[in-house]
Amino acid sequence: MIPKDHPRYRSLVARERLARCAREGVVALEGLAAHGRGEAFDYLIGERTSESALLAARTAAAMLLSARHAVISVNGNTAALAAREVAALQQASGADVEVNLFHRTDERIALITRLLEEHGVRVLSGTAERLVPLAHDRGLCLPEGIGDADVVLVPLEDGDRCEALRKMGKAVITVDLNPLSRTARTATLTIVDELTRALPAITAACATLEPGERDRLIASLDNTYLLRAAIDEMRERLVHALE
Amino acid sequence: MIPKDHPRYRSLVARERLARCAREGVVALEGLAAHGRGEAFDYLIGERTSESALLAARTAAAMLLSARHAVISVNGNTAALAAREVAALQQASGADVEVNLFHRTDERIALITRLLEEHGVRVLSGTAERLVPLAHDRGLCLPEGIGDADVVLVPLEDGDRCEALRKMGKAVITVDLNPLSRTARTATLTIVDELTRALPAITAACATLEPGERDRLIASLDNTYLLRAAIDEMRERLVHALE
Repeated sequence: MIPKDHPRYRSLVARERLARCAREGVVALEGLAAHGRGEAFDYLIGERTSESALLAARTAAAMLLSARHAVISVNGNTAALAAREVAALQQASGADVEVNLFHRTDERIALITRLLEEHGVRVLSGTAERLVPLAHDRGLCLPEGIGDADVVLVPLEDGDRCEALRKMGKAVITVDLNPLSRTARTATLTIVDELTRALPAITAACATLEPGERDRLIASLDNTYLLRAAIDEMRERLVHALE
Repeated sequence: MIPKDHPRYRSLVARERLARCAREGVVALEGLAAHGRGEAFDYLIGERTSESALLAARTAAAMLLSARHAVISVNGNTAALAAREVAALQQASGADVEVNLFHRTDERIALITRLLEEHGVRVLSGTAERLVPLAHDRGLCLPEGIGDADVVLVPLEDGDRCEALRKMGKAVITVDLNPLSRTARTATLTIVDELTRALPAITAACATLEPGERDRLIASLDNTYLLRAAIDEMRERLVHALE
């Protein structure tokens, strides 16, 4: 029991939620540490959506809506933190949803699929094949899902897989709080924001973007600019940190 | 199995080790997320011991050696990451070691005590009493350990407990990679460094400090300066992050 008067109550409650999902097998234990990394960077951007992150979310909406076949790749952390937000984004964007795990077992795939379905997500099913150029189970995906997609939204992704998807010629959109990560730097578009803030921002943009605006956002996409803006936010916050 | 050619191999292996200790009950699941936070800040200081962190470690050695009764407070993460380093520091400093947990159960106390003893640590035993001004089990400590100490080294501590120990009039030394945390700002002395680098630095200083040097280090302790120096390191690294 975390006392309610603890100054970091909200953050500790989020950790407890992830820990509970880890006990149930939805979240990999390694995913808990990855979540902690995100928390640290979120602290540094002030735990709010910056102007540049909002621009990135709008550009993501434009890419999803303009895609031939958009797929949202969901892992354990994403399902634990944002199953409801994934359902809303699927509804608004028309994207397919595929469960794709770094620590892959049939049991975890089934658990996460059920959790998503309970929150209204329609989840692709089928037989995974090793289509992504990576060793072991990390190369597995559905031929009719990520295998066929031209645009993939992969929140909280591993750098290796992000790079492999890019090599397959896919446009990769990621949500990553660390603007220095290999994922952030390898993706076509990086939204430096916390997942439960970022996904609703994309969903909201899907509902309002005009077709001409979509084209302009895609044409002016500059991921290095977006990363630099996030880094500048962090530096600025560090200047005033001890005041 | 993490492929050896993964660019973040070392960091992922450390996470796997913590995850294994979590499965065994040594590390609390919430401790995995806390570890991740540390990883993020370690990345920002370049995963090396800075000049200011070395000064902090030398000052910590001076405080431990000059104490009437120094106690090292060990939690699950500290035991999992640095049992051997705690043994060496106990040997060099003469400090007592007490197991003190945020997520306290008798079973975890026993597990962690055994892990420490296997690595050569002499662990205080006795009946814990609520001497620290905090609710629930978080206020428990040994009367002949932390309860009696004038100097307490508490690596990876929670901000609440750090503050409560300060209120009891104790000098608190902490090891915390986040220079903005309440722990870092509340402690008497904060070493902004990764635990398995920081503890050996204190141990090495214990062996070499002259008595006069000890007094000078303690007299010139300025924790705000040390935190500012760590923050400046991080800002500097962010400037060059995308090069």
